[in-house]
Amino acid sequence: MAKNGPSYSVLSPGCPSRVVLDRIADKWTALVIQILASGTLRHSELQRRIGDISQKMLTQTLRSLERDGLVRRKVYPVASPKVEYTLTPLGRTLIEPLQGLCRWTEKHLTELEAHRWRGAASNPPVH
Amino acid sequence: MAKNGPSYSVLSPGCPSRVVLDRIADKWTALVIQILASGTLRHSELQRRIGDISQKMLTQTLRSLERDGLVRRKVYPVASPKVEYTLTPLGRTLIEPLQGLCRWTEKHLTELEAHRWRGAASNPPVH
Repeated sequence: MAKNGPSYSVLSPGCPSRVVLDRIADKWTALVIQILASGTLRHSELQRRIGDISQKMLTQTLRSLERDGLVRRKVYPVASPKVEYTLTPLGRTLIEPLQGLCRWTEKHLTELEAHRWRGAASNPPVH
Repeated sequence: MAKNGPSYSVLSPGCPSRVVLDRIADKWTALVIQILASGTLRHSELQRRIGDISQKMLTQTLRSLERDGLVRRKVYPVASPKVEYTLTPLGRTLIEPLQGLCRWTEKHLTELEAHRWRGAASNPPVH
């Protein structure tokens, strides 16, 4: 539940919500949450699905999500240890806002790239 | 308008939308877009409103937003040059998805912080 929600604003300098926004507004966080939205995955499978993330960066991202209570890590104590990651109910509430950002990116990519190309062709960089 | 939208997916490794997601899923981008949502501002005023951003980081963020066609920069050639920043119509379409992420952060901050505190108290960091 939202507690003291109205008292926090990312628009207030010094508000602790900015620290959290910094962790959440992140490409790897967005991808991990979107991929785990479809179900529990092992570390190796998650890395395969993301494709271009280093093992170190994936571990850091998952650890941060786990510390925030957004992802649950379960270790099966078998001969070859199996580690699985699942979104918590709190983590599932983040699917929609991050999905909104991902859908916006996919929808407007062509326009943004066109601006970049036009800009590069007509305006030399300003220093 | 969305062109070729359905052919892009941030879930596909190597999709160019990931490069754009990396620029958009960013704390400073989120704050600049949210603050400019209420109207045109000068560089100095924008920096004052954000509060804890360096001039260099703000300049980098604004330049990237300008290159993507999300922010328009207008220079008034007066004795003491005046530079103003305004969201473009394309930039305005980004207000809502970023607002969703900011609202989520403000709403769930208490829960995330509680998880962090509990975790720090009960689990020493795993290396």
